[in-house]
Amino acid sequence: MPGTLLIVSAPSGAGKTTLVRELLKRDGRVQLSVSCTTRQPRSGEVQGRDYNFVGVDEFLAMRSRGEFLESAEVHGNFYGTSLRWLERQLAAGRDVLLEIDWQGAQQVRRAFGQAVGIFILPPSMAILEQRLRGRGTDDEATIARRIHAALAEMRHVAEFDYVIINDDLQTAITDLQAVVHAARLRLAPQRARHPELFSPLLQD
Amino acid sequence: MPGTLLIVSAPSGAGKTTLVRELLKRDGRVQLSVSCTTRQPRSGEVQGRDYNFVGVDEFLAMRSRGEFLESAEVHGNFYGTSLRWLERQLAAGRDVLLEIDWQGAQQVRRAFGQAVGIFILPPSMAILEQRLRGRGTDDEATIARRIHAALAEMRHVAEFDYVIINDDLQTAITDLQAVVHAARLRLAPQRARHPELFSPLLQD
Repeated sequence: MPGTLLIVSAPSGAGKTTLVRELLKRDGRVQLSVSCTTRQPRSGEVQGRDYNFVGVDEFLAMRSRGEFLESAEVHGNFYGTSLRWLERQLAAGRDVLLEIDWQGAQQVRRAFGQAVGIFILPPSMAILEQRLRGRGTDDEATIARRIHAALAEMRHVAEFDYVIINDDLQTAITDLQAVVHAARLRLAPQRARHPELFSPLLQD
Repeated sequence: MPGTLLIVSAPSGAGKTTLVRELLKRDGRVQLSVSCTTRQPRSGEVQGRDYNFVGVDEFLAMRSRGEFLESAEVHGNFYGTSLRWLERQLAAGRDVLLEIDWQGAQQVRRAFGQAVGIFILPPSMAILEQRLRGRGTDDEATIARRIHAALAEMRHVAEFDYVIINDDLQTAITDLQAVVHAARLRLAPQRARHPELFSPLLQD
């Protein structure tokens, strides 16, 4: 397909949200995936732009029909990425970025072998711990839980294609832009975008 | 290994030489592979920089000991890429670019699974033919032979990871730079460059 599916995962504290926001500002061809959710719209959220808001019955019916590429329950609400929605975007040549954890990434990879996996790491464990300690107002048990969760996420780094180490923010953004740029130049999307050039060369 | 091995292939007329020259100017971390050859040094060529000049006996002995990643005979002279030389460069974190044809690329890929293959295509067959016709001083048989050779090379495009279509030169250079930049951010070289960060995360 002419579009590229980008998966971005990271432990909390790695700076993923900032990086993705900067990428979206600089690269107009990348859009965030629009998830289905059963939670109530918050003020300012727009149906179809921020989320596809659906009822619980509808969500569960979609899920049982296998319409989700990945789905999860968070704080009693369901979230899922519609396979059909995603295929439509990629077929139209749009690049879609999914921010998910390693489990979601595994589910997506199974359905979309062509997905490009990007993992964001902090520059060191010491710096990650500093960031997770936050303003020093949380108790040690909470901090220990956060560090444990971050480590559990990071142990899946080897399942990703690219690793960006977020030490200097500007460097990390340039890195992310290069990965997205290169992802568009892989054989499969180039072939889908230029059939007149490739079809005389490839028989299958 | 911390360095990246880049293979660049293209049919003649695709503009590979210009693109690679521009990349080397802009990206000081990439160097051309230094081949062994049995041909005589030309004026200005420096041993170890342009080529490693060796005698025919020495070349054949190296070849029979399996010391070449790939080798070829062109106009009665032997050329080959020394496996040991290449491994030394990559281990030292240098990025090495090999300009070779699809056959050489296959040989290299077998020895270095981590090599990144980049194929340069012209924007269309019509433009390629125009370029191969040159200044209109060659006979039709010569031109037909060139077109045939270019097509034979291009039929191997699907063996490469990235495809750059050289329509606008500036765009193609930016594309090539992005691919090289992203190649350095793949899991394997990142892991080799940052063992202190990765080793607590990965057991194997």
